[in-house]
Amino acid sequence: MRFISLLTDFGDKDNFAGVMKGVILKINPQAKIVDLSHNVTPQNIFEAAFLLQSSFKYFPKDTIHLVVVDPGVGSKRRKLLVKTKDYYFVAPDNGVLSPALKGEGPKKIVEITNDRYFLKPVSDTFHGRDVFAPIAAHLSLGERIGAFGRRVETIKHLALPLARRLKNKLIGKIVYVDHFGNLVTNITRADFADFIKDCRFKIHIANYQINKISRSYEEGEKGRPSAIFDSFDNLEIFLGQASAKERLFPNTDISVEVLKY
Amino acid sequence: MRFISLLTDFGDKDNFAGVMKGVILKINPQAKIVDLSHNVTPQNIFEAAFLLQSSFKYFPKDTIHLVVVDPGVGSKRRKLLVKTKDYYFVAPDNGVLSPALKGEGPKKIVEITNDRYFLKPVSDTFHGRDVFAPIAAHLSLGERIGAFGRRVETIKHLALPLARRLKNKLIGKIVYVDHFGNLVTNITRADFADFIKDCRFKIHIANYQINKISRSYEEGEKGRPSAIFDSFDNLEIFLGQASAKERLFPNTDISVEVLKY
Amino acid sequence: MRFISLLTDFGDKDNFAGVMKGVILKINPQAKIVDLSHNVTPQNIFEAAFLLQSSFKYFPKDTIHLVVVDPGVGSKRRKLLVKTKDYYFVAPDNGVLSPALKGEGPKKIVEITNDRYFLKPVSDTFHGRDVFAPIAAHLSLGERIGAFGRRVETIKHLALPLARRLKNKLIGKIVYVDHFGNLVTNITRADFADFIKDCRFKIHIANYQINKISRSYEEGEKGRPSAIFDSFDNLEIFLGQASAKERLFPNTDISVEVLKY
Repeated sequence: MRFISLLTDFGDKDNFAGVMKGVILKINPQAKIVDLSHNVTPQNIFEAAFLLQSSFKYFPKDTIHLVVVDPGVGSKRRKLLVKTKDYYFVAPDNGVLSPALKGEGPKKIVEITNDRYFLKPVSDTFHGRDVFAPIAAHLSLGERIGAFGRRVETIKHLALPLARRLKNKLIGKIVYVDHFGNLVTNITRADFADFIKDCRFKIHIANYQINKISRSYEEGEKGRPSAIFDSFDNLEIFLGQASAKERLFPNTDISVEVLKY
Repeated sequence: MRFISLLTDFGDKDNFAGVMKGVILKINPQAKIVDLSHNVTPQNIFEAAFLLQSSFKYFPKDTIHLVVVDPGVGSKRRKLLVKTKDYYFVAPDNGVLSPALKGEGPKKIVEITNDRYFLKPVSDTFHGRDVFAPIAAHLSLGERIGAFGRRVETIKHLALPLARRLKNKLIGKIVYVDHFGNLVTNITRADFADFIKDCRFKIHIANYQINKISRSYEEGEKGRPSAIFDSFDNLEIFLGQASAKERLFPNTDISVEVLKY
Repeated sequence: MRFISLLTDFGDKDNFAGVMKGVILKINPQAKIVDLSHNVTPQNIFEAAFLLQSSFKYFPKDTIHLVVVDPGVGSKRRKLLVKTKDYYFVAPDNGVLSPALKGEGPKKIVEITNDRYFLKPVSDTFHGRDVFAPIAAHLSLGERIGAFGRRVETIKHLALPLARRLKNKLIGKIVYVDHFGNLVTNITRADFADFIKDCRFKIHIANYQINKISRSYEEGEKGRPSAIFDSFDNLEIFLGQASAKERLFPNTDISVEVLKY
């Protein structure tokens, strides 16, 4: 038995996600489907890539991660199936898998072309239903990956922006804002430790300065931002019991700088 | 084993949908529940009918489609169970099933009256929990449909508006706006083909004119609307990589006209 | 087989709820997970407590109710596992369980301390993933509750506000606003019956007066509020086919008074 996780930008109102589940269960009534999120910002491949790479390892071995954030649906963009040591990934070839696959070791990549698995007629606008869901379902039944198309060697690359390191400065940016209004930066715990070593530090964001890393949200001050390492090991800017985004940083296209001295 | 799909206007915050699932699983722990949508616009029977009719066939045979969009809860409106060749439907008799059942061939209709299946006391405001969920659960256990009430012949009729055809004009309207801000019209692929035949055409919407049918969203122009047939075969008006509703048509109570020449 | 219900304030966009499900299924692939709600207002323990106490009894016996509304994550607040006659509860010790447990008879309370069940390293910000999900998963596998920590006698108390009874007046307040904009008060059907007995009554809310209890939403007047007992036996103020909150009471921090005469 294999699990299928779903990550899409279909939202909660339309029937898109529900119909994909129907299609999967019609092919494999034993499939176990888990929603990762259906609320990726429409067409935001970066966001989907960020959520996928920070989530996929928490799922059972052999889970099929099905990602449908697909602004190129109906165009010539390829459709991919990737097998790593522990997981399967099914998605359009638009870069959304690239951060998750980085560091996952050897992988087998198949360009999905065998239309005998597709729902017909294949629509121009909903390959989630007509291509990706059936592929994931047949895969969950144990079909071998070679059956779906031909082996290829490369996938489209998409790089999540990395923190930049200057002599006495580590410059990051906000890459995600969560439901609580916390600002997730691209400065990782490792980036930070490596840069700071034994020095003292200050974190600058907009006109604010932060001098310590909190160990719980409760330590956060009210009215001014604090910093913490979040559960995916990113440096996060937050506000005590309120939304940092709403109260302090409506515009999150700003840099976060760590200075050592 | 039978699947139960849920289509409601209960939203995502309240415990209504979760409690219905609890009730179903308490009666049949083996039931497989699939969310179709819980975000039908409150009390919007048309919208629920539209979503149901475009979704139900994608589910496994014998799925029980449970629809609770029920502004008449507690009043004298009837409660229905309908069996078609491939599916079961459980819903209030307010027209919500009517578009889905059209063309589904012979059906058996039961007015649900046998209160020995209900959760007691039956509340005035939540028949989803006290009536419909238990009925669906017992049905999923294999109870025969005659056990739930008496056979009736008719259900309340609700017609989704059809496109109107004049001599040289096909006049449709926006019947749904999806999560991406695409405007779904009631002009079907068949309506269109049948009307256009070998002629050339123009599509008018507000002050815009569209001269071709796109084959992918990527073909869409920026700043002005394009047209495509969506995955449910409706003519759809969209905007390249943005929300047509937000950017161009905040008011969607407008007509879409196809002219041939 | 035990069911696990999830009640959180994680919202629908982030990967938090999905990752918790992954963690549970990695430990117990047979676990059956049911979403109660992920849209509790962020950090609102009262709201979570209200939703839990009105929902938990509808689930199958032995369901594990997992509640992660946890503003104190990473601080010294305790982590609890509670067993009652029919259910299990796993949650931070912040009062969220207290209304549900009231009246549930004898219970066994365990402070979760055995970190051999935790995901390591335990993050400072996401005990839902690193502590609570693994505990619920191991519990669903049949692990005995004593394995997770030491027995304790008390939990943090949180009282939902009760209606106050004066000589000729019963004074309540709005404790919840549902998806439809209905205003749920803390005046229960029992409070009301007990106070009114055979007298006549009037209900005052803001400048409105209501003289009867409706038996269906359809009886509600348009433009002015009506009253009904909702499915959880609370007196509810509603507006015929519209949102009472949106149209009449944007501010719901107001009292609802029942007068008898």
